Amino acid sequence: MPELRRDPIVGRWVIISTERAGRPRDFVHDSGVGLASPAVCPFCPGQEALTPSEILAYRGQSGQINGPGWSVRVVPNKFPALQVEGEMGREGLGLYDRMNGIGAHEVIIETPEHKHQLADLPPKQLEDVLWAYRDRMLDLRRDTRFRYLLVFKNHGAAAGATQEHTHSQLIALPIVPTSVLAEIDGCRAHFQHKERCIYCDIIRQELAESVRIVSENSEFVAVEPFAPRFPFETWILPKRHAAYYEEAQKTQFELLARILNDTLRRLNAVLSRPAYNFMLHTSPLHENTSSFYHWHLELIPKLTQVGGFEWGTDFYINPVTPEEAAKFLRDSEA
Amino acid sequence: MPELRRDPIVGRWVIISTERAGRPRDFVHDSGVGLASPAVCPFCPGQEALTPSEILAYRGQSGQINGPGWSVRVVPNKFPALQVEGEMGREGLGLYDRMNGIGAHEVIIETPEHKHQLADLPPKQLEDVLWAYRDRMLDLRRDTRFRYLLVFKNHGAAAGATQEHTHSQLIALPIVPTSVLAEIDGCRAHFQHKERCIYCDIIRQELAESVRIVSENSEFVAVEPFAPRFPFETWILPKRHAAYYEEAQKTQFELLARILNDTLRRLNAVLSRPAYNFMLHTSPLHENTSSFYHWHLELIPKLTQVGGFEWGTDFYINPVTPEEAAKFLRDSEA
Repeated sequence: MPELRRDPIVGRWVIISTERAGRPRDFVHDSGVGLASPAVCPFCPGQEALTPSEILAYRGQSGQINGPGWSVRVVPNKFPALQVEGEMGREGLGLYDRMNGIGAHEVIIETPEHKHQLADLPPKQLEDVLWAYRDRMLDLRRDTRFRYLLVFKNHGAAAGATQEHTHSQLIALPIVPTSVLAEIDGCRAHFQHKERCIYCDIIRQELAESVRIVSENSEFVAVEPFAPRFPFETWILPKRHAAYYEEAQKTQFELLARILNDTLRRLNAVLSRPAYNFMLHTSPLHENTSSFYHWHLELIPKLTQVGGFEWGTDFYINPVTPEEAAKFLRDSEA
Repeated sequence: MPELRRDPIVGRWVIISTERAGRPRDFVHDSGVGLASPAVCPFCPGQEALTPSEILAYRGQSGQINGPGWSVRVVPNKFPALQVEGEMGREGLGLYDRMNGIGAHEVIIETPEHKHQLADLPPKQLEDVLWAYRDRMLDLRRDTRFRYLLVFKNHGAAAGATQEHTHSQLIALPIVPTSVLAEIDGCRAHFQHKERCIYCDIIRQELAESVRIVSENSEFVAVEPFAPRFPFETWILPKRHAAYYEEAQKTQFELLARILNDTLRRLNAVLSRPAYNFMLHTSPLHENTSSFYHWHLELIPKLTQVGGFEWGTDFYINPVTPEEAAKFLRDSEA
């Protein structure tokens, strides 16, 4: 059973999940080894038996469950960081706090085509992927044990991907990650002071100044943040105030797919198809954040190794201004 | 001039330092490329003219300043993230806050021997390195513009090192990093509640339980933390309560050198000489933290790429329990 443990000083929870653990040498750094093309890919059509039974799939009427013919397929992670079944098992151990690693860990297979990357998908296919996130979130939020639904993507070995076939992941957590809590606290403080959403204020200022804008459409804006931790860190924000991703309208998903496709293509053009991570920041469940929180997508290209020390400090040295990065991205042929 | 910028939502400052910036392709990921042995190493004896003029050096009486004969040498970073000269230049830009990138960025060259790693240095030499940190900190704390002195080491290309010749770095900052602020807040809250230092409480519990202890001597303990973010993350803590590293006694440095040498050798034995980062967490300057803060060293081996997404979430999945890691390290032939 995986375990959640809380650091008693800073309050950060970590997942201790030893499912895949072996001897220490298994953890020896393997950077430089790309992702091998497997002889048999468990995410390819025809190989559905290699994954746990599907939770959701979009397929034509003729298709069989766990058979081919799907366009997007969601399955439980075969090596889950957290486990759905069981008791919460909260307990104190002297100074320390722990609980059982209860949660869900799902894989969203974004296309049946092994060789396609997310940036290569037609916007309609990407829209279906974004819609699948929503479908799964609406289902998982009914489980009252969960307090946060974390959707993220690791693209490329350098960004932590272990399968070549393009996919994203969803983890349902019984706690809220500290970085989301910090955002919630900041948003709440701004709202108490100004009675406005700070992200709405940021969008207004950015659209007025233009210098950090990458692109926009009627519903979304892609922007380099004022104080980015990483070169070419990019945020995609809905212009319309909303705390919950999964409550967005159907028409918004179409426009989100378009701006995400456009942003990934610009990053690919400027940075030669980099490894990257993205993470959906949406409101924690069961909290009344509607007036002051604003969901958004954070995209981080994984570039040089500059500043491994940042892992221990939360302190970042960024060699590229967001104004320069935005200009490179605006000027690129997306 | 480098620039410090503050994220308006979570309050995290970043350094935007474009000294080394070039075209976007310069940031394309280069993992797998090790550190080349340079034809001429700027950190080797006889090449002192290749660095800015030295700030501190330990050498025999016969040696000349900026000449060979030193055992430890401290120089300004040739490509500094921050700049010593200038005004603070604090200003608001609408929602945003910025200031000039005022600070110091120094390099501590740990040995004249190009081929030695920190773990290979005799304990007396390592003690001199630790003493050099102290010497520089006592000097820099007299500059009232600085609020934090950050000593860290990137060992190996995968951990962000760009020079093969073993060295550590010191950055003097006009702000306190958010991860240190979070520790300070946690320590203060515990002290207000219990009138005890939380790190002292942790040391007592760890010594009583023994399962996460790697090693100890009369002044220090090396321990795997209860909720580690990374496999084999290791903390070295002084047993004696103290908030400021630079105020430690001479005899403590001898024992710190011994336990650090021992810990690095154990990590090397178990993990096949991994890349790693360490970071000295000491009290911010000009704050009265003496009763509740406790300085310590955090060591993070840089192993697999698991969880690139953690960069965006502060949420960690660790595949090794600290109890297992401690056992591997205890059992190793250091």
